[in-house]
Amino acid sequence: MNSPIGHKIWAIPEGYIPSQSTGPDPEFTSHETACILNAGDNEANIEITIYFTDKDPVGPYKLKVPARRTLHLRFNNLKDPQEIPRDTDYASVIRSDVPIVVQHTRLDSRQAENALLTTIAYSVNE
Amino acid sequence: MNSPIGHKIWAIPEGYIPSQSTGPDPEFTSHETACILNAGDNEANIEITIYFTDKDPVGPYKLKVPARRTLHLRFNNLKDPQEIPRDTDYASVIRSDVPIVVQHTRLDSRQAENALLTTIAYSVNE
Amino acid sequence: MNSPIGHKIWAIPEGYIPSQSTGPDPEFTSHETACILNAGDNEANIEITIYFTDKDPVGPYKLKVPARRTLHLRFNNLKDPQEIPRDTDYASVIRSDVPIVVQHTRLDSRQAENALLTTIAYSVNE
Amino acid sequence: MNSPIGHKIWAIPEGYIPSQSTGPDPEFTSHETACILNAGDNEANIEITIYFTDKDPVGPYKLKVPARRTLHLRFNNLKDPQEIPRDTDYASVIRSDVPIVVQHTRLDSRQAENALLTTIAYSVNE
Repeated sequence: MNSPIGHKIWAIPEGYIPSQSTGPDPEFTSHETACILNAGDNEANIEITIYFTDKDPVGPYKLKVPARRTLHLRFNNLKDPQEIPRDTDYASVIRSDVPIVVQHTRLDSRQAENALLTTIAYSVNE
Repeated sequence: MNSPIGHKIWAIPEGYIPSQSTGPDPEFTSHETACILNAGDNEANIEITIYFTDKDPVGPYKLKVPARRTLHLRFNNLKDPQEIPRDTDYASVIRSDVPIVVQHTRLDSRQAENALLTTIAYSVNE
Repeated sequence: MNSPIGHKIWAIPEGYIPSQSTGPDPEFTSHETACILNAGDNEANIEITIYFTDKDPVGPYKLKVPARRTLHLRFNNLKDPQEIPRDTDYASVIRSDVPIVVQHTRLDSRQAENALLTTIAYSVNE
Repeated sequence: MNSPIGHKIWAIPEGYIPSQSTGPDPEFTSHETACILNAGDNEANIEITIYFTDKDPVGPYKLKVPARRTLHLRFNNLKDPQEIPRDTDYASVIRSDVPIVVQHTRLDSRQAENALLTTIAYSVNE
């Protein structure tokens, strides 16, 4: 039942964390999220690299997702090696040592009513 | 004309049912939906497993989709073995005994104006 | 430059045309759209079948997309063999005699501010 | 770490730049964006062709994305060989000489509150 599902490398070309928000924190804080599903029996060791328009990539950001768990990771919360700047275009590549599935979401609350977007990320066939 | 279309295993890493809604029920009740299309000539027997951030998966939730029918399943309505908690991150894996196609949708009416998101779910090549 | 791009069979499990709208017609009329791109050198002959929750499929709806053209088809406008009922869950399968690319979009203006969703449709490997 | 990721040909059937916007420019100007990630070690030379409903395609629009960079390209800003008309259905095909990843986004601010949509574009297997 817990055979691994997914790919080891994922890409999300869209990235943009608005500096402004409307509504109570943290639910309505504008955020970008990588929803990660590890449906397998082994912990996933994950490294994220962030790409920019006019400077070198930053990373890796390291994190773990336990076996049979999901992690909805807010890019807003990444701190090490450095915070992702707000109001700045970026992209991300997510690498795992076991298969995972990644879905990208943004809640944008810059205006009074929130807006949402989502897509399954781009998976790389190895 | 009715050859089966799709895959037998699908994953949706994003899942979050807001506890709050604005507007008449059920149209504007905040909900997460798995839109399932069974375009083939045989009934689909489907099992859904729900994954969480910090506890073991729950399931299977069992349902059927008749031949040549679509079912837009609200995760809000799943009851057995237990309701999906509100305001909680989750993910889902959907397994069928015949090929189906799955699309994920959320209507979020926590604020006065509704927001929508959708994506074709992630399909697993067997 | 005009080699065909895409697949011949596409599926969109989500379908729902709200009967209510806010704002000037036709831009802000609530609608579901299949954006079809025919990037090849031959006209595409397309047949759409509509699936429902509790009755037999309806179709085919027939249309053409000329070579090197796009058609953003509103499901609202399909009339023959019959209109798609409003406020009703449906799904669609789109078959073409040449490769095309299909993207699904909804503009929902039931409330004062419009909401949007989109996804590339599910393509079938023949 | 910088092996190329992606495909060389991408298609986005949906395209529509609203002529109207609400809110400060440029953040809230209604726009369509192709978010392009070049995660490889070689500059990407990219050509975009725009398809319409009832006239011949226009292009190529030429641009470059440096190695290990992302470009969030607003279709609004394309000028050469000609501007993309507003309030007009279009589609696009994006060709690169090295693998890239493309995600499509629209921010629609025709009404007081913005709406967002996104999807990973359709990639062509060569």
